[in-house]
Amino acid sequence: MRNLKGTLEYDGAAYFGWQRQPRHSTIQQTFEETVERIVGQPVRCHGAGRTDTGVHARGQVASFRVPSRLSSSTLQRALNALLPPDIRVLRLEEAPDSFHARYDCRSKRYVYRVYTGGIRSAFDRAYALHAPAPLDVPSMRVAARPLVGRHDFRSFARKMAPTRSTVRTLLSLDIWEDRNYIFFALEADGFLHTMVRSIVGTLIQVGMAKRDPRELVPILASGDRARAGPPAPPQGLFLMEAHY
Amino acid sequence: MRNLKGTLEYDGAAYFGWQRQPRHSTIQQTFEETVERIVGQPVRCHGAGRTDTGVHARGQVASFRVPSRLSSSTLQRALNALLPPDIRVLRLEEAPDSFHARYDCRSKRYVYRVYTGGIRSAFDRAYALHAPAPLDVPSMRVAARPLVGRHDFRSFARKMAPTRSTVRTLLSLDIWEDRNYIFFALEADGFLHTMVRSIVGTLIQVGMAKRDPRELVPILASGDRARAGPPAPPQGLFLMEAHY
Repeated sequence: MRNLKGTLEYDGAAYFGWQRQPRHSTIQQTFEETVERIVGQPVRCHGAGRTDTGVHARGQVASFRVPSRLSSSTLQRALNALLPPDIRVLRLEEAPDSFHARYDCRSKRYVYRVYTGGIRSAFDRAYALHAPAPLDVPSMRVAARPLVGRHDFRSFARKMAPTRSTVRTLLSLDIWEDRNYIFFALEADGFLHTMVRSIVGTLIQVGMAKRDPRELVPILASGDRARAGPPAPPQGLFLMEAHY
Repeated sequence: MRNLKGTLEYDGAAYFGWQRQPRHSTIQQTFEETVERIVGQPVRCHGAGRTDTGVHARGQVASFRVPSRLSSSTLQRALNALLPPDIRVLRLEEAPDSFHARYDCRSKRYVYRVYTGGIRSAFDRAYALHAPAPLDVPSMRVAARPLVGRHDFRSFARKMAPTRSTVRTLLSLDIWEDRNYIFFALEADGFLHTMVRSIVGTLIQVGMAKRDPRELVPILASGDRARAGPPAPPQGLFLMEAHY
């Protein structure tokens, strides 16, 4: 058996997220079943990040083992021929036997897209949040700054089992504008469930002047999920890269 | 009653084309029903071009009459709030009482997109044809040149009632490359059914060296639909502009 590292791109609009679920179509399941069709035996694949329903990826990384006879370039071609067109294998390479896409991941980078123009393009409806009013980018940057660093991010996460650590290191949080779009880029050594969208949702409230930029510090310190803003909707979110 | 000129953008992937059909969801029907919900009376709208199933528009023009009480800016906002997000009204303006989007149209411009890179993006699957090999652009340009001008284009059209003229003036046919994409832009005073896609499909055969560039002249002269190539699939085609 050989261990492989695949870099995947997917349009998440039609899927119930990455992770296998009993009654819904997910990206992990679709990918595993396609590999199984090719190699003729059960395959388990591990993803760097578990993207939610409707979230997209430009650089999800998946590790999985296959029998040795197929070259990775042949397997990549076969996968792209058999996978639905909204899931693509951008790269497929040999990995050390110990490589695990989730456990070995040092950091991941997500980008969230917000469209602030008057009429959102018919072609962008599943790939950005539409904020019909302009957002105050300098205020959002002020609000975001204290989040960078090593913190307990439980205020910005869906409730988890109390035994699991909610401490993560947010390596960067950049916000920029490009014409009618605002981009939020977050890189961290790990993300809690809905953490990116909860942070972005809270920052958008700051950008709309519904919340003071100085509130982010006490929200973070409180550990109270109810004090943060609602998670921004999934369609604006892209998993861009996983670093090893 | 006031006569209005609307400029529409739509993602055609989910629709059976522009024109109303008995049992299928079309853009014309969706648009008319949305206007009717707002103005409270039956509305008939006319489009500059009847795009086929799966064909997109960045600048379809539609004309329709509404009672005078609503301003066009109010109506535009209401339409964009009530229309599905894959149909947008980019502009809505008052038009002279005699204005008719189809009969008054002097010319329309279509663009067809072909992706020639190895792995097509998961986000572009409904918006380009994937040609897995490079296409010979200079040969396609040589082949395209004699099509420009006033000709009987029946060789490049679905069979029509013999009483209707199949003569059209192709004002321009430009082909250019941009990174892994090839674009075909056609402007004409009118297009026969599947004319753009039949011309592009035949040119792609030239670009793949399956057909000599000099064949286009005898195909055009023959009037024989069977001699042209198969129509390129609809997802690469965009109605860009209608000129008045």
